[in-house]
Amino acid sequence: MEKMNQALTDIKPLDKGAMAEAGKRQDDLTKPQGSLGQLEFLSVQVAGIKRNPKPRIVHKVIFTLAGDHGVTKEGVSAYPSEVTPQMVYNFLRGGAAINVLARHVGARVVIADLGVASSLERHPDLRDKKVAMGTQNMARGPAMSNEEAIRSIEAGMELVEEELSKGMDILGTGDMGIGNTTASSAITAALTGAEVAAVTGRGTGIDDRGWEKKVKVIQKALELNRPNPKDAIDVLSKVGGLEIGGIAGVILAGARHGIPIVLDGFISGAAALIAAALSPHVIPYLIASHQSVEGGHKIILDHLGLKPLLNLGLRLGEGTGAALGISLVEASVKILDQMATFSEAGVSEKEDSHKE
Amino acid sequence: MEKMNQALTDIKPLDKGAMAEAGKRQDDLTKPQGSLGQLEFLSVQVAGIKRNPKPRIVHKVIFTLAGDHGVTKEGVSAYPSEVTPQMVYNFLRGGAAINVLARHVGARVVIADLGVASSLERHPDLRDKKVAMGTQNMARGPAMSNEEAIRSIEAGMELVEEELSKGMDILGTGDMGIGNTTASSAITAALTGAEVAAVTGRGTGIDDRGWEKKVKVIQKALELNRPNPKDAIDVLSKVGGLEIGGIAGVILAGARHGIPIVLDGFISGAAALIAAALSPHVIPYLIASHQSVEGGHKIILDHLGLKPLLNLGLRLGEGTGAALGISLVEASVKILDQMATFSEAGVSEKEDSHKE
Repeated sequence: MEKMNQALTDIKPLDKGAMAEAGKRQDDLTKPQGSLGQLEFLSVQVAGIKRNPKPRIVHKVIFTLAGDHGVTKEGVSAYPSEVTPQMVYNFLRGGAAINVLARHVGARVVIADLGVASSLERHPDLRDKKVAMGTQNMARGPAMSNEEAIRSIEAGMELVEEELSKGMDILGTGDMGIGNTTASSAITAALTGAEVAAVTGRGTGIDDRGWEKKVKVIQKALELNRPNPKDAIDVLSKVGGLEIGGIAGVILAGARHGIPIVLDGFISGAAALIAAALSPHVIPYLIASHQSVEGGHKIILDHLGLKPLLNLGLRLGEGTGAALGISLVEASVKILDQMATFSEAGVSEKEDSHKE
Repeated sequence: MEKMNQALTDIKPLDKGAMAEAGKRQDDLTKPQGSLGQLEFLSVQVAGIKRNPKPRIVHKVIFTLAGDHGVTKEGVSAYPSEVTPQMVYNFLRGGAAINVLARHVGARVVIADLGVASSLERHPDLRDKKVAMGTQNMARGPAMSNEEAIRSIEAGMELVEEELSKGMDILGTGDMGIGNTTASSAITAALTGAEVAAVTGRGTGIDDRGWEKKVKVIQKALELNRPNPKDAIDVLSKVGGLEIGGIAGVILAGARHGIPIVLDGFISGAAALIAAALSPHVIPYLIASHQSVEGGHKIILDHLGLKPLLNLGLRLGEGTGAALGISLVEASVKILDQMATFSEAGVSEKEDSHKE
């Protein structure tokens, strides 16, 4: 609790001076001003986050956190719960989508067990941060205790802090947990006030009947547990997930340490809602990698005022969208760092525009 | 002319067998089917283009073609014509946005002079394919002769063929030419039948008065030259550009040699309209990297039935969007090649969906 509260008070506003200097440099580079669109804004944001007008990105880390969900007993997912640990082993062997995309963009992946509902075999690349053997079924009572919710957040913070010494110029978030779109929909409804049906999607691929059941289960969980929308820890404990709390912790620690945070899709978005409810100062540190197919994700991004970089119809999670987003952020700071200015290159500037 | 006609008859349909096999493998990989959205379709398209169910992308080449436009005499651009050769030198020194982004994605850049209106200094990395010292002013007569239009296309084809021996698993297109959004708008209006105002944007950054003048100049050029919409060479010669013809040639040669073609923005789109009008068989070889800010670009993409990968508010050209797009295509084929299947990874498959 102290660890979390300390982080909340430590998060600084972005460095306006570094941003102004980066923006000025963008305008001096050999291209029409603004012609690289969102890439220009991104580089300025990263300059502000890293408090450096010409930041570089070398060390890239994606945190993929796993946890199970008691609510799967209600039949809300197309896949059985045992897929969560099976996929963790797949991550550790390097055979999952996140492994492929992280290699593609030159990022390392940190795999952590926040609350898988079985005992995982030890592995040198698996961080054991298990808070509980999965959550309880939120359709019958709270998903976890208040203490577990805080512990999950602090475990996520520890993951970031334990990696800092290896170098971390940017981080991405990712998740694995059968049933976690159900928890994310419930969190989104609770914290944004949106209708359950509007924030509930098909997750890994349920049909119409499955979707109707999922909506009812979420409505029931919200009615039964009555999460307090003014209290993010209450929301996380009653209808959240351990990996979602962990991702919220990764976000808080990233912001505290001045690291740009590239969010994956819907699950990471729900975690960002929790983190932003704990401290709105985290929002300027966030970069939305993509727009998920899950309808609730757009509601989250609008709520946080974030514009996604990609819209490729992704709905996998694991940090896959974050990996692709990290590469775009890296491109944006390379533009700022490596391009020639008009005077360096001897290129004529824009003519007096009223002549045109 | 013979060279071009030979290419037109040589372009094959995509390999349906390779596509079916790639699609089946995508469905066996350890992720919910379809959860990687457009990345899955991309990998299947590339399999069809490369006639290989598990293609690899190692050698990436971006062709950035430069040419000048006589129509700049009408004051249609925010920058003076001398910026075209200045930017070519900037490309050759590695200081432009395309250099930075090509390095970021591991692509090499081929810089070619198709029709810069001044004699460029020789440079080992500059391909001299100059057809003329820029185009003529299309507001006073045809931009070029029929022969020059065909020569520009064949010069673009030669660029690709001369690079083949160095390895080329994918290519991107790019342009540099002050005044070339004016030519591209005219081509787009001629070949799609859209209104001039709807396909005319602000290029490098003209104001409202400049935009109104640009629309009038394009309307005048179309009325004066009456390009035949059924004859792409007639359109290119009357209202086109030498670098635009060159890019059309790059596209035709890419399709002929079974290479995926990642289009940059509006100028490359206009070149793709020319190429597709010469042979609609090129269309399946095309991948739209991004949606440009130029309004005419959306009309082009809709006309060709292409869905852009990125929408980042880019409007620079040079091949910058293509570079970012190439990285996404490469990611898609790595997914297909490197991910584990459900059976390899021992991951449970989807449960019977009506249970959910």
